[in-house]
Amino acid sequence: MKLNPTHDPQARSWLAAANVEGTDFPIQNLPFGVFRRAGSNEAFRGGMAIGDQIVDLAAAARAGVFDGLPQLAAQACSESTLNAFLAMGPVAWRALRQALFAALHRDADAQTVGLLHGCLVPQAEAEHAVPTRIANYTDFYTSIHHARNVGRIVRPDDPLTPNFQWIPIAYHGRASSVVVSGTPFHRPMGQALPPSAVVPVVGPCARLDYELELGFYIGPGNAMGEPIPLDKVEDHIFGICLLNDWSARDHQFWEMAPLGPFLGKNFCTSVSPWVVTMEALAPYRVPFAHPADEPQPLAYLDAAANRDHGGVDVQLEVLLETAQHRAKGVAPDRLSATSFRHQYWTIAQMVTQHTVGGCNLQSGDLLGTGTISGPTAPEAGAIVELSRGGTVAINLPGTGEERRFLEDGDNVILRGWCEKPGAARIGFGRCEGLVLPAVGT
Amino acid sequence: MKLNPTHDPQARSWLAAANVEGTDFPIQNLPFGVFRRAGSNEAFRGGMAIGDQIVDLAAAARAGVFDGLPQLAAQACSESTLNAFLAMGPVAWRALRQALFAALHRDADAQTVGLLHGCLVPQAEAEHAVPTRIANYTDFYTSIHHARNVGRIVRPDDPLTPNFQWIPIAYHGRASSVVVSGTPFHRPMGQALPPSAVVPVVGPCARLDYELELGFYIGPGNAMGEPIPLDKVEDHIFGICLLNDWSARDHQFWEMAPLGPFLGKNFCTSVSPWVVTMEALAPYRVPFAHPADEPQPLAYLDAAANRDHGGVDVQLEVLLETAQHRAKGVAPDRLSATSFRHQYWTIAQMVTQHTVGGCNLQSGDLLGTGTISGPTAPEAGAIVELSRGGTVAINLPGTGEERRFLEDGDNVILRGWCEKPGAARIGFGRCEGLVLPAVGT
Repeated sequence: MKLNPTHDPQARSWLAAANVEGTDFPIQNLPFGVFRRAGSNEAFRGGMAIGDQIVDLAAAARAGVFDGLPQLAAQACSESTLNAFLAMGPVAWRALRQALFAALHRDADAQTVGLLHGCLVPQAEAEHAVPTRIANYTDFYTSIHHARNVGRIVRPDDPLTPNFQWIPIAYHGRASSVVVSGTPFHRPMGQALPPSAVVPVVGPCARLDYELELGFYIGPGNAMGEPIPLDKVEDHIFGICLLNDWSARDHQFWEMAPLGPFLGKNFCTSVSPWVVTMEALAPYRVPFAHPADEPQPLAYLDAAANRDHGGVDVQLEVLLETAQHRAKGVAPDRLSATSFRHQYWTIAQMVTQHTVGGCNLQSGDLLGTGTISGPTAPEAGAIVELSRGGTVAINLPGTGEERRFLEDGDNVILRGWCEKPGAARIGFGRCEGLVLPAVGT
Repeated sequence: MKLNPTHDPQARSWLAAANVEGTDFPIQNLPFGVFRRAGSNEAFRGGMAIGDQIVDLAAAARAGVFDGLPQLAAQACSESTLNAFLAMGPVAWRALRQALFAALHRDADAQTVGLLHGCLVPQAEAEHAVPTRIANYTDFYTSIHHARNVGRIVRPDDPLTPNFQWIPIAYHGRASSVVVSGTPFHRPMGQALPPSAVVPVVGPCARLDYELELGFYIGPGNAMGEPIPLDKVEDHIFGICLLNDWSARDHQFWEMAPLGPFLGKNFCTSVSPWVVTMEALAPYRVPFAHPADEPQPLAYLDAAANRDHGGVDVQLEVLLETAQHRAKGVAPDRLSATSFRHQYWTIAQMVTQHTVGGCNLQSGDLLGTGTISGPTAPEAGAIVELSRGGTVAINLPGTGEERRFLEDGDNVILRGWCEKPGAARIGFGRCEGLVLPAVGT
């Protein structure tokens, strides 16, 4: 296998901030997003994070930093969403990323450095939008630990539905209410059935929750009626972001029989501004297997490459910053931490399952992994699991507060990164969202 | 209330085909869609059905048939989808429809008639596309008779979930696989758990079904966090179409616990080419009420106007044309017939429920009513109900065949119309789709 120069952990950039220990955005990462200067009327356009800066790809395309395929790809990134770029496929994605790597490398020639330097915008001065025009948003349910934790609340004796170990379960989510990190939202109103009541009430959500997830974006789509086999999936996946599938548990549990979650989820879903490419994540691919004493995947969900490196070891954490944290100037408290390597199904299996019946995916579609909960209790990816359905209070050491569910003024921050000896750290940045009071309350 | 001239049942057009007894498209209807000449490379653009013709709205806008607001609206219809027109709202919709009514009326002046005559395209020479760029598709579940019929198959003692009489239940559907009437589709592959098996199998759907529904399109949307109250909903609804929510029952029943239908539905959804406006349907609005001995709607789902005329009396039928019908040249057999007036929740209640938590609807969004089954057994809107879960064979008198579920080569045809003494017949045309064999079989 040819060594990919962008994976060299020793590579350094002429941009000093990209070489700082612990940065999310070293030269080996180079994630894509859309941005503009905060508070301006500029058009949103594609950008790439490096250190504490953003490469304005529209400006770079105009400045003549690139030629050939990288130039065409940078031009596609000049639009207000990344859809056109994503539709170009992996050859174009790699060409642009590798051209950016070369141009940002400390060995780049002075003319390139000069041109690119003029295309930098400080991250601190930028605001973001959702990276693609999301035509379709699908959310999976692929952590067996999450499924058991949540199932236990509803069905203590039989927490796992019989299909879980056979199907990467999913449902269609709401595309219109996907927002970029930093967008506050109102606590939703809705119907719920209070404990031991027979008549439901309508009111502000009393059991507001987050869900720690990863999202991934579809590059080239597939035609209706043409499934994507497991060993072709990675040609269709552009990259991965952080995703928070905010959930109104009281509304959700009242509404979801028999057709699944609807208003319990569709009031808001948050994504991180940066999409980390599958190419950047290659050093962190890990083997995938179901435990030997559990059902093995049916043939269409099984392939050697998926067993060898179907997983991705993304480390994840959830932080909570309450109004008191902000008032006292103390750091957010960590609620939990885990890794995506524990997930029961891989991204490839999710895509193959999604298309097995002929459903067509489209460029820019967003697919969520479902809540990522690890094997131990402190690794749970939702507060309903940590508080066991609201029966146990969670202490916030920073302020001495307690939580069973989210309160108004709470800001939930998801973080993700890959790190191991012999490879560069690859960060995902943050995905955060502030809970505002319900409208009319 | 001012009499709306477009509701006058005596009105006649200079186009003779619009005055034929029983036509779906008299001058009182004037539904909108997008079309082009079949087999051509023309751009799709907006059209309006009249008799056996289509008024090419792009051509009419260029020809100077209209001025003022109707001209702006016709220009918006010149795009390849109706999204821009739908975003203009009810004042613009009514202005264009009433201008078209006047121009098509037998009292229209000779110059207008001459101009408009040059903008007609025969329906027989046209092909259609989905009328809007559907950003979001939601499907409701609002027939209590359907819910009881289907629930009985799974839970004989307790067919109705406790939320049904309190919530217009819905789930998010798949926007990418919504196709226009006449688009064939392949029988989906997928996982199912055969009766009394413990290990699922993957294969072609063995229990393929249709669902008789109406769909409705959103005009102006709402901002995230701003619910649409019940008495404002009709400002947001453009019109109604026929919708077939094809369903793979074996895949659906295996996958849907706990998150609802996914692959069982997302392989294909068909809509009729024509959208009948709410204005045209005004004479067919009927009172809405839950039975007195059943729960009454919570306050946010209750309003005087909704009680007075929240319902719509659309008559509906399902026809089946098998390969043998075509070979023998016999007419399709009718499988069932019912009316939308039996539905347990109104369109307005569906929209208010959809937005109560702050979910934002967008122009061009498609909302399905869910299967429309009437109170008696022969009025069921899905074959799984008619065949009682596949246990009873349905006879097709035209060919002597039987069906428990759909077979390859079956063409399912939905039809809808409004008709009563003292009002003009308002037709919906047809929504049909042909089942092709599964890919690779």
